Amino acid sequence: MQTPVDLSKAYRLLNHGPTVLVSTANGEQRNVMAAAWNMPLDFDPPKIAIVIDKNTYTRELIAASGSFAINVPCRAQADMVVRVGSSSGRELVGKEAANKFSAFNLPTFAAAKIAAPLLEGCVAWLECRVLPEPHIQSTYDLFLAEIVAAWADDRVFSDGHWHFDGHDELRTPHRWRQLLHYGRKPAGQIKLRAINCPPLHHKSKTLLQAAKQQGKY
Amino acid sequence: MQTPVDLSKAYRLLNHGPTVLVSTANGEQRNVMAAAWNMPLDFDPPKIAIVIDKNTYTRELIAASGSFAINVPCRAQADMVVRVGSSSGRELVGKEAANKFSAFNLPTFAAAKIAAPLLEGCVAWLECRVLPEPHIQSTYDLFLAEIVAAWADDRVFSDGHWHFDGHDELRTPHRWRQLLHYGRKPAGQIKLRAINCPPLHHKSKTLLQAAKQQGKY
Repeated sequence: MQTPVDLSKAYRLLNHGPTVLVSTANGEQRNVMAAAWNMPLDFDPPKIAIVIDKNTYTRELIAASGSFAINVPCRAQADMVVRVGSSSGRELVGKEAANKFSAFNLPTFAAAKIAAPLLEGCVAWLECRVLPEPHIQSTYDLFLAEIVAAWADDRVFSDGHWHFDGHDELRTPHRWRQLLHYGRKPAGQIKLRAINCPPLHHKSKTLLQAAKQQGKY
Repeated sequence: MQTPVDLSKAYRLLNHGPTVLVSTANGEQRNVMAAAWNMPLDFDPPKIAIVIDKNTYTRELIAASGSFAINVPCRAQADMVVRVGSSSGRELVGKEAANKFSAFNLPTFAAAKIAAPLLEGCVAWLECRVLPEPHIQSTYDLFLAEIVAAWADDRVFSDGHWHFDGHDELRTPHRWRQLLHYGRKPAGQIKLRAINCPPLHHKSKTLLQAAKQQGKY
């Protein structure tokens, strides 16, 4: 019954929480990426930990701005998360759609304490300021940050508690972690996993298929 | 719709993955505790990050042994997780039941590469060796560790994928995070939250009730 697990797949044994979207801004530059590996770190002052690969454009903007926002997406946003997660903001710089927000027509609203835009339609938002820990940032791609402001959709989170009943479309999708783990790319590659995921909207399936065909996933 | 969230509750916006049990051993001493804040950190070599409060007995045993095991519990173990999570191994030292394993009659099996015992009935096990990062250990109670061996119950995890269909009792319970977050204790206190949790077995409810009455939660 207890069977050994290949060490290259061992991370999946812990891989159950919701994938989040990390939004960033530095001057005119802005980006949003999907990140699967994140967790709370402390209560007071509240802190979080998140893995942001050093090859990402988001990492560049975090290094320049010292801040980022975590946007917690919901099931209704599956398509958008796949789009955001399977494209690079760096490739859009200088193009007509200068960033993913305009390329994918993603409405945002202003954060209270940081420059990063917050994504409409998500169910929670954490405004974060990076704690200066250069050693673990460079060695492990691990960022520790203080939460300086937080927001939630009061239909599903209020008085400190989630309450999804009656709002299935606003549920946070845990298994997306196995679909999108861009915070860290296995073997330098983005992998989109269709197996073990909740049903995707048709468009997402098409996107996945297209990405696979183009060898871009 | 977007409502501000009290910063003392902001951690709950990310608080969805499964609570795990951390088992440790050093010589004759052994312990097991519940820890809600954990995540994968890297693929190769595989690493994880976990928060272990400096007041825990587990922390003492990890500091002494340099290793620990993560046991991923399943729904059928709700009662046991509540028992393990609402008691202190330190208080058992020198008593007849010298540790939680004997106090709660928890069968274990031997790990392959570390001294910590692995808990029977869990659905996955990660044997971990602590990476020497004393600064973040002491500043943030954050431990980074390399996974040196991994095991899973092949009824629900095989070929690198979870497959819970037909095994509801073996599912990993995400909302336990809001019930048990002993890796870090808010305001130095253990809090058991019955709200927003899946139905507990009757015994767990009784335990919760008893703990509350005794002011021990």
